[in-house]
Amino acid sequence: MTDATPLIETVPNYSEGRDPQKIEKIVDAFRGRPGVKLLDYQADHDHNRMVATVVGEPDPLRQAVLDSVATAIDTIDLRRHQGEHPRMGAVDVIPFIPLRAMDMDGAVAYAKQVAQAAAERFKLPVFLYEAAACRPERQNLATVRKGQFENMAAKIAQPEWQPDFGPNQIHPSAGVTAVGARMPLVAYNINLNTADLTVADAIARKVRHIGGGLHYCKAIGVELKDRGMVQVSMNLTDYTRTAIYRAFELVRIEARRYGVTVAGSEVVGLVPMAALVDSAAYYLGLENFSLEQVLETHLMQ
Amino acid sequence: MTDATPLIETVPNYSEGRDPQKIEKIVDAFRGRPGVKLLDYQADHDHNRMVATVVGEPDPLRQAVLDSVATAIDTIDLRRHQGEHPRMGAVDVIPFIPLRAMDMDGAVAYAKQVAQAAAERFKLPVFLYEAAACRPERQNLATVRKGQFENMAAKIAQPEWQPDFGPNQIHPSAGVTAVGARMPLVAYNINLNTADLTVADAIARKVRHIGGGLHYCKAIGVELKDRGMVQVSMNLTDYTRTAIYRAFELVRIEARRYGVTVAGSEVVGLVPMAALVDSAAYYLGLENFSLEQVLETHLMQ
Repeated sequence: MTDATPLIETVPNYSEGRDPQKIEKIVDAFRGRPGVKLLDYQADHDHNRMVATVVGEPDPLRQAVLDSVATAIDTIDLRRHQGEHPRMGAVDVIPFIPLRAMDMDGAVAYAKQVAQAAAERFKLPVFLYEAAACRPERQNLATVRKGQFENMAAKIAQPEWQPDFGPNQIHPSAGVTAVGARMPLVAYNINLNTADLTVADAIARKVRHIGGGLHYCKAIGVELKDRGMVQVSMNLTDYTRTAIYRAFELVRIEARRYGVTVAGSEVVGLVPMAALVDSAAYYLGLENFSLEQVLETHLMQ
Repeated sequence: MTDATPLIETVPNYSEGRDPQKIEKIVDAFRGRPGVKLLDYQADHDHNRMVATVVGEPDPLRQAVLDSVATAIDTIDLRRHQGEHPRMGAVDVIPFIPLRAMDMDGAVAYAKQVAQAAAERFKLPVFLYEAAACRPERQNLATVRKGQFENMAAKIAQPEWQPDFGPNQIHPSAGVTAVGARMPLVAYNINLNTADLTVADAIARKVRHIGGGLHYCKAIGVELKDRGMVQVSMNLTDYTRTAIYRAFELVRIEARRYGVTVAGSEVVGLVPMAALVDSAAYYLGLENFSLEQVLETHLMQ
């Protein structure tokens, strides 16, 4: 039970958020497979997009993802697709996140395998992005997706936008897909005892990376109208290097300048156990603590 | 994956800590069984005792435990057993600990099932102890075990020491067994920046239950000679009611009286994830946080 079978998370985005039958067919690829667990899936009608959260061991997960891509390509026609969320493919984006017994290099290698297999099996142009990107300008998904499905045929005809795998022309109905690797992202918000949005904005600008703050922190100020409060809303893109407690303490310190206190904080969605254990260990001053001491570490998979 | 199969931990103690072949035969009962995981086992030569740590689902775990008892009874003869640790049976004690989707009442009912099955299958007198005890004077294991194997035949002949299950006379070679239920125990020590043991002793006396302190806290002062420090060494016997952070903060507050600061703390052995997540949630002021948000919650079993 403590033998280290690698475990990977993937959060693929499919361009179908309205037809329950089609959505079920796509996520069925993740059901009833040993070594693969569908944790969640959420369809958004306005975005016309469905996001699945899946964890699994490398081989069965790869098969499941490729099968879901097959179903999505059979089911979704981007030529007749409308929705508020920018998109460029029937399967818009497939990020892989190393959870256990795999480092980022391993996740990048895995993403490339899946990208190549999808490109060959479906004659689908695939771009590598984030940590898997082979060119710096492709790290940012928004840059890759710019122009969306409607302009992708012209975009990939340009030499600098040749896909990393697959043909140099879009799939007629399924467009193109981006496959990437990244760390688990922690969505973490800190609520402030003030209704003044300029305070949250100012703090957000200081604690985020581009403002001179924490390396793996994106942040904006957000108004919580019904609570008469504001919030510093953050994405921690690598909690192993930018810890939750560090973001919390830094916001608290910056808030002092405005005579504002922290009311509380919240984690949105899923968070890796290690991110919270790390914060507990910091505040309790735990010495020589190992995740192996967490009982549940021995109960997984 | 989020369906709530109950999960139970057991830490049975067997009176064999010297013969590796016998030890392996006993723990083999916990190997290769779906729904049962042997997390650890440690044999102590001086104590002549082996302690296994096992988790499992109710039905397969019960079968595994009963099979381990069968092997232990076949293998161990208390009439020829010597060791430093007090003992009264070939299988000395079997505590059950509810880990998931089971409360203490459920664990007590489960302990009674196992106790009755063992008593009938092996003609073994069984006492219920701790939360499973049917009489207050049997809650404390030391009281049940008093007199040890050598005096147990006379002890259970007394009306007030009739066993809860099984015959009213000891098993000739295997003695008697105690089966109980308890919460997971967190062994938690707080190191103080002083070499004065009287300070650790005084703080321990204040924070522990019998001294007027926290309900589910046992504590003593301990000297860490090689570090020139002392430590408040605690057992938190129900972390869901006496939280780790509360013990930590209380020790810090009490230490102020002596002008002593906390150097750090340590968790000894295994700790349930929820105990650490609770401390992280306290210090970060997490609002509306649920263990369901911890990714690993969805990866277990």
